[in-house]
Amino acid sequence: MAKPTFQSLPGFRDFRPEDCAVRNYLFAKFREVARRYGFLEYETPLVEATELYLKKSGGELGTQLFRFEDQGGRDVTLRPEVTASLGRLLTACQRDYPKPLRWFEIGQCFRYEKPQAGRTREFYQFNVDLIGEPSAAADAELIALSIELMRELGFQKGDFVIRLSDRNYWQKYADSKGLSQAQAAELLQIVDKIEREKEEKLTASLAPLGLTLAEVQEAIQSPSALSENLNTVLSNLEARGMRDDVEIDLSIVRGLAYYTGVVFEIFDAKKSMRAVAGGGRYDSLLSSLSDGKVDLPAVGFAIGDVVIRDLIEKTPHALEKMQTSLAAESACDLFLVLADPSQEAKLLALASELRQSGLAVSYSLSATKFAKQFKAAEQAKAPLALVIGSEFPEASLKLIATREEVKITADEKLYTTLSQYLKK
Amino acid sequence: MAKPTFQSLPGFRDFRPEDCAVRNYLFAKFREVARRYGFLEYETPLVEATELYLKKSGGELGTQLFRFEDQGGRDVTLRPEVTASLGRLLTACQRDYPKPLRWFEIGQCFRYEKPQAGRTREFYQFNVDLIGEPSAAADAELIALSIELMRELGFQKGDFVIRLSDRNYWQKYADSKGLSQAQAAELLQIVDKIEREKEEKLTASLAPLGLTLAEVQEAIQSPSALSENLNTVLSNLEARGMRDDVEIDLSIVRGLAYYTGVVFEIFDAKKSMRAVAGGGRYDSLLSSLSDGKVDLPAVGFAIGDVVIRDLIEKTPHALEKMQTSLAAESACDLFLVLADPSQEAKLLALASELRQSGLAVSYSLSATKFAKQFKAAEQAKAPLALVIGSEFPEASLKLIATREEVKITADEKLYTTLSQYLKK
Repeated sequence: MAKPTFQSLPGFRDFRPEDCAVRNYLFAKFREVARRYGFLEYETPLVEATELYLKKSGGELGTQLFRFEDQGGRDVTLRPEVTASLGRLLTACQRDYPKPLRWFEIGQCFRYEKPQAGRTREFYQFNVDLIGEPSAAADAELIALSIELMRELGFQKGDFVIRLSDRNYWQKYADSKGLSQAQAAELLQIVDKIEREKEEKLTASLAPLGLTLAEVQEAIQSPSALSENLNTVLSNLEARGMRDDVEIDLSIVRGLAYYTGVVFEIFDAKKSMRAVAGGGRYDSLLSSLSDGKVDLPAVGFAIGDVVIRDLIEKTPHALEKMQTSLAAESACDLFLVLADPSQEAKLLALASELRQSGLAVSYSLSATKFAKQFKAAEQAKAPLALVIGSEFPEASLKLIATREEVKITADEKLYTTLSQYLKK
Repeated sequence: MAKPTFQSLPGFRDFRPEDCAVRNYLFAKFREVARRYGFLEYETPLVEATELYLKKSGGELGTQLFRFEDQGGRDVTLRPEVTASLGRLLTACQRDYPKPLRWFEIGQCFRYEKPQAGRTREFYQFNVDLIGEPSAAADAELIALSIELMRELGFQKGDFVIRLSDRNYWQKYADSKGLSQAQAAELLQIVDKIEREKEEKLTASLAPLGLTLAEVQEAIQSPSALSENLNTVLSNLEARGMRDDVEIDLSIVRGLAYYTGVVFEIFDAKKSMRAVAGGGRYDSLLSSLSDGKVDLPAVGFAIGDVVIRDLIEKTPHALEKMQTSLAAESACDLFLVLADPSQEAKLLALASELRQSGLAVSYSLSATKFAKQFKAAEQAKAPLALVIGSEFPEASLKLIATREEVKITADEKLYTTLSQYLKK
């Protein structure tokens, strides 16, 4: 039997340094694009009262929760998403901030799903929300942010597509067909599945609504008129030079009940994977989460780290951009090589001084041969090695890549000299 | 009755943007100092099999766990600390990396404690470990890193002290008194409590070991001889100019059973708070966690975000350093003010262009009066506002702090001009 203590739990990832670097690359891109758009970072707890999620979902809890009773007898849950927490937080503190709020969170979420390609039981989600602005200009701003994020991650025009839709289009359609509210909700559920489900099943589901599959497909492919909001979003993105990244696709409605207007999803151009990101307008959720205490319109989107990493790895120029960025972050700027053991105190003093100046410095902790120290310098990916011998502060600087050697004189400002070689 | 869904769970923190900025400031300092010392970041899961913690503690589980059964019937636990996970990870992958490993993790941990000042039920821990090096040079390197972190956080000489000790001193002492292994372990437990417990109780505990409180206190205050390792650490730190930050204090033994050599704790100079950080050498833990598969010496330390933030807030120059750093990170570089609504498309195009150049740009999403837009610029803490009117690309740039106005001509390179004012 395998020893379970030697493995992480199924669906939970260990980030070795090389994986953690990828994670941090993604987080840095999330933060950089959010910053450019004037968004501020917040963070909510990983554990919340289960009631919060019950409230958000309108009474029906998902089956994929990590839910348990804590030592105080509370019914608690590892967060499956962060919007419920955001609603709770805003109820407590939104008065303290001028509107609209531009807020984002990079949070780990937990869902008990069957682990498979692109699906883990924990994942990080970059959640971006714009709260307190009802106009479609906010929807466009958020979609623009998502496009800029894709570009910043190295994706080019044609690598991805934003599929844009509006739930109100379907509300109007349902009204024109004389459907009730419940029937309209059901129609949305059917449209949500129209790409994945068999024709017979769709036809059978539509029949009780008095609709045929052909007329619903017609409504998707040849809409009689787009909503004003969709037109605003399109012309707004046009002004930013982002119109080509977007296509109207009314089959996108997003499964979740709380969306109220424009919705969108990001797909790889081949649509070969599940959505990379998705979001939309949710104007009544905050009110329902807060029992009416906070009635603010909102629009948000989320992107998960697992799917976007997969897509980067499948997209050569995005992968190359990431790898170039990771390679530039050497673990170590300078490796100190001790040629004369009696000079150890000087090595330590120098290491301390250079580190305080901001350089990343390493050295062999135990006395070891010259060649072995150089090997350690290479393993630490240091571009430079400084050999400290009996003539120190005279020293010799080796450029690891070219094996070139530079003599350092006793009166040189070492930090300045090193910085030139490091181009810092 | 208060509505529980409107509150976070007791002991769990919401990080509003202003708190999240403090958290990110701490994390940035952790990462910066780790980088200078050549350490690489890794991350392990927040949930692990409970058995892992059972194994680490030698069979006795703490009472403060968030422990539950997952949907697959597994006995799992929210991590109370990360060293057990590190041991698991190293068992799986240490062969892939040259030794010694310089690794760190910034991880959230969970303990069901009574929430009070300085104690929450979740906290972040900066864990730094140096694995595969038996010599005291590694202990010194790690202690130096902890001192540099304190300095980088704005603490000055005299604000804090490293209390340095060696468990082997007590092992030798126990041997000299003819104590058994079990008695030696008990002696360590008593020494651990010597600052907190009443004299009578200490005396009573020492009696079965054939020791008096006076002779143990004598052993603490006037050690006959320091261990070779402690002397090495001291002279090593002396060479780095860090000797004054450390004092020998043999009453420090760290409660945890797995430490095997040099141990240390960081305290505020008045010792008015509990330890800010602590660590030491644990040469047999990895072997016992891996059933002997990985037998590597190791030394590590951890610092929590809650106590260090408290100490920063109590230390005026550290607080000022943090506040200066936070103030410099304006949410927004430039606010675009629309003076002529017909120019909206130009505003959007300009926003997009400047953001792609790396500037943080904001603007009012809905048409609003001139004065209100300027108010929004101030609220966004933008140092600059650019007024876009009918003459655009001629525009006027307002310096919010001084209310100075600068005319921008049509042929100016806007990004260059703005950068000058932003000193970027």
